[in-house]
Amino acid sequence: MPTIDLNADLGESFGPWPMGRDADLLGIVTSANIACGMHAGDWDVMAKTIAAAAENGVGVGAHPGFPDLQGFGRRDMAMPVDSLRNLVCYQVGAARAMAEAAGAQLRHVKLHGAMANMASRDLAVARACLEGAKLAAPGVIAVVITGTCQQQAAQDLGLPWAGEVFADRAYQSDLTLVPRGQPGAVLHDPTDAASRVLRMIEAGGIETQDGQICPAAVDTICLHGDGDTAIAMARAIREMLEQSGITLCSFTGRQG
Amino acid sequence: MPTIDLNADLGESFGPWPMGRDADLLGIVTSANIACGMHAGDWDVMAKTIAAAAENGVGVGAHPGFPDLQGFGRRDMAMPVDSLRNLVCYQVGAARAMAEAAGAQLRHVKLHGAMANMASRDLAVARACLEGAKLAAPGVIAVVITGTCQQQAAQDLGLPWAGEVFADRAYQSDLTLVPRGQPGAVLHDPTDAASRVLRMIEAGGIETQDGQICPAAVDTICLHGDGDTAIAMARAIREMLEQSGITLCSFTGRQG
Amino acid sequence: MPTIDLNADLGESFGPWPMGRDADLLGIVTSANIACGMHAGDWDVMAKTIAAAAENGVGVGAHPGFPDLQGFGRRDMAMPVDSLRNLVCYQVGAARAMAEAAGAQLRHVKLHGAMANMASRDLAVARACLEGAKLAAPGVIAVVITGTCQQQAAQDLGLPWAGEVFADRAYQSDLTLVPRGQPGAVLHDPTDAASRVLRMIEAGGIETQDGQICPAAVDTICLHGDGDTAIAMARAIREMLEQSGITLCSFTGRQG
Amino acid sequence: MPTIDLNADLGESFGPWPMGRDADLLGIVTSANIACGMHAGDWDVMAKTIAAAAENGVGVGAHPGFPDLQGFGRRDMAMPVDSLRNLVCYQVGAARAMAEAAGAQLRHVKLHGAMANMASRDLAVARACLEGAKLAAPGVIAVVITGTCQQQAAQDLGLPWAGEVFADRAYQSDLTLVPRGQPGAVLHDPTDAASRVLRMIEAGGIETQDGQICPAAVDTICLHGDGDTAIAMARAIREMLEQSGITLCSFTGRQG
Repeated sequence: MPTIDLNADLGESFGPWPMGRDADLLGIVTSANIACGMHAGDWDVMAKTIAAAAENGVGVGAHPGFPDLQGFGRRDMAMPVDSLRNLVCYQVGAARAMAEAAGAQLRHVKLHGAMANMASRDLAVARACLEGAKLAAPGVIAVVITGTCQQQAAQDLGLPWAGEVFADRAYQSDLTLVPRGQPGAVLHDPTDAASRVLRMIEAGGIETQDGQICPAAVDTICLHGDGDTAIAMARAIREMLEQSGITLCSFTGRQG
Repeated sequence: MPTIDLNADLGESFGPWPMGRDADLLGIVTSANIACGMHAGDWDVMAKTIAAAAENGVGVGAHPGFPDLQGFGRRDMAMPVDSLRNLVCYQVGAARAMAEAAGAQLRHVKLHGAMANMASRDLAVARACLEGAKLAAPGVIAVVITGTCQQQAAQDLGLPWAGEVFADRAYQSDLTLVPRGQPGAVLHDPTDAASRVLRMIEAGGIETQDGQICPAAVDTICLHGDGDTAIAMARAIREMLEQSGITLCSFTGRQG
Repeated sequence: MPTIDLNADLGESFGPWPMGRDADLLGIVTSANIACGMHAGDWDVMAKTIAAAAENGVGVGAHPGFPDLQGFGRRDMAMPVDSLRNLVCYQVGAARAMAEAAGAQLRHVKLHGAMANMASRDLAVARACLEGAKLAAPGVIAVVITGTCQQQAAQDLGLPWAGEVFADRAYQSDLTLVPRGQPGAVLHDPTDAASRVLRMIEAGGIETQDGQICPAAVDTICLHGDGDTAIAMARAIREMLEQSGITLCSFTGRQG
Repeated sequence: MPTIDLNADLGESFGPWPMGRDADLLGIVTSANIACGMHAGDWDVMAKTIAAAAENGVGVGAHPGFPDLQGFGRRDMAMPVDSLRNLVCYQVGAARAMAEAAGAQLRHVKLHGAMANMASRDLAVARACLEGAKLAAPGVIAVVITGTCQQQAAQDLGLPWAGEVFADRAYQSDLTLVPRGQPGAVLHDPTDAASRVLRMIEAGGIETQDGQICPAAVDTICLHGDGDTAIAMARAIREMLEQSGITLCSFTGRQG
């Protein structure tokens, strides 16, 4: 019987500014990626969000990003790899401490925004970032975008890892995303997205835009929580998976 | 045979800006208080400084402060106690991860600047800060200013603690410092300062301005590294202590 | 025929985080206090908000605060007066440039949050802040809380000024606010608030909790835009004033 | 009789961290580029440095950069052009206000670090940045790196401009710099550098590595102040120019 994890970014509020539908998401996902204070989140938001995730039995993970609050970590920044490693180690260490302070365990790490994009296409960046995570939390599971340099880096470093697939983005034959702007790049219909997710879980691979299944790690599905539409799609996916007998639970991490 | 610890603040550089005589201090002190990125230090400075301290056999500690880079954490900030606890937990967690990444252990925590001053006089502030430290690093030794609310908070929380005494400041009968500006508030002569430190270690108490010894915890001496004069005094104190048969080593922490 | 200005804080979004009902407020107020990037707002939010205010014929003002994004400028910070003057000069200069870039004029300055509170009770703080504003924008009108050290400082500095009164807060006999938590401290009924505002405008003074009118500068009414209730009260006040024949327009500034 | 301007970056201290030999440089240069608080400098450093420049008769300019203190504005950041324009407008506006507060005039603007590099090779970036400067300070002189997109953008925008040449870097035939690491890329000998500067001023063009003179704007020479060697070279250049009858004075700005 296949199992799957559902993940979403949480704890993206900052100071007086709320963001996201964390309470709704905690009833849907099985893993929460918690912003670590550099691109979003602050010490208070982290403490509150981690406590809520733990109370809801949702897996707690760190979601490190670039030190760029105004740009929400979405702008490429050219940092040396040593600095990337230190930057991720710092953030994951802070998140781990706050998880343990809440009586929880830091189960996973997932890179955010521009840092994630750079790590997907640049193996040296991916290795530096994931090495920083490993140093701060040995045994932590790396949530990597399936088929990218992130996955390669986790495997090279001997980190347990989980492959992430997007619920609402179409894939090309080489497992890269169909660029936004091209027809069909984004799936808007919850039922379509949910059935595709189901097919991918059952087939153990990614369904590309031309309908082929390409064998790949489908361990966790990335969901969004930035509005009514996103929440509706997240709920639809969860419900269809449950009705289809898929067990929803946090990943345990692949080895090698 | 009495032992004593010598501590100083290190890792106070930030980005392109160097600060302090870290290389010199690492040959003098037995404990290093490492800035944690909020009032000084950044992820790269922390990584480098912690590695250097570990290589020199100097005890590694976290030195959390207010999030106020421009003011160097020296300006009072009115933060709720919950936020203080989270803020310290975040910083100590980051420092602990970076210490462990360097193969070292985070041995102690010492509050910085205005946060330390507020914690000295306000028990609720002291408890919140030290509780944050304890949550991030259970078993960590709290370096507290002897005779202040910091000491009381550590004792209340059941944290192992070490009492800190200033090498270059005169004390009043109630163990508060003689205010700067008053005659004799600051000791400038290295020999005077060193002999007073020696007398306090041997007597197991603080020597007040009128020459009395008041029983108190004298576990670690605070040294400075911000210039030739400070380094000269730090060296003089270390040398006189060694010549007098005092063993220099990091504290192990008092209980209760 | 009496006239009155209605002011509110705008441009308090930051990066990806929206805040406030700016579009609604621009149809209600005659003066907008624009956050300057230290406690809220950023260069993009400022540019957009100032352009929108100018297009709506709303007076553009700078709203400087402490450099404390996470605390939204609401935490007291102990800064030397020289630094306060420079800090306000910096922010008002940036706001003035962005107003002129949008073809508008920077008409006024109003202090934010903890900086405003400190300036209300401490004349040295008030003078330093308003001197910084004057240096950055000679001739700018200081919006001051009527009856506080802010008003005194504006008068001392020879700045044109406008006295601000709160629509929803009760006043004590000495013109300080009834502390939150005390009965009647906050007015919740739009009609009550609007009629009190009207009485104060017509009487040319502040109505205290015991129903007395104390002669004072009532030049601008502070409104809020942080939710449906606030917007409803703001609209109610504007409508009642219009129906009562009060002319709504931006202040021109008192001399002396 | 030819004239020349000598410029250097000043006001790069931040909070408690000093940087640079500002006092020395103020006796050497005729134009000072003042950091504006985003990559270096803060409101207090700016106020102090601008006052000192004005007292020494040195031209005051703004030196805006990326909002990246830890990276000193030297890391490429991918920002939309609208945001770049707003970012520069904000910084130049703050600097202009602080110059006028000191009784001085903001004479010029020069981009810093990674922002300058991006503007040299990307015309859209250059135009956005210089448009922001023009909006904040109409009539300000753009100090542009001769022969780059910066120069083109200033000309397109109708800004008065001055062409900057490096005292210590070798040029290729296309007026780009010989990359660091290649033989002769950096001139280390003060006499060599000074004589080359003199030849370029007299010839009205840039001397390339093969000894040719390529006609180009040689209006201001970029000097450094980060150490004894840099100061010695800066002094040597100034002295040789004075002895050769070149008049040292701030540029007035080319048109078109």
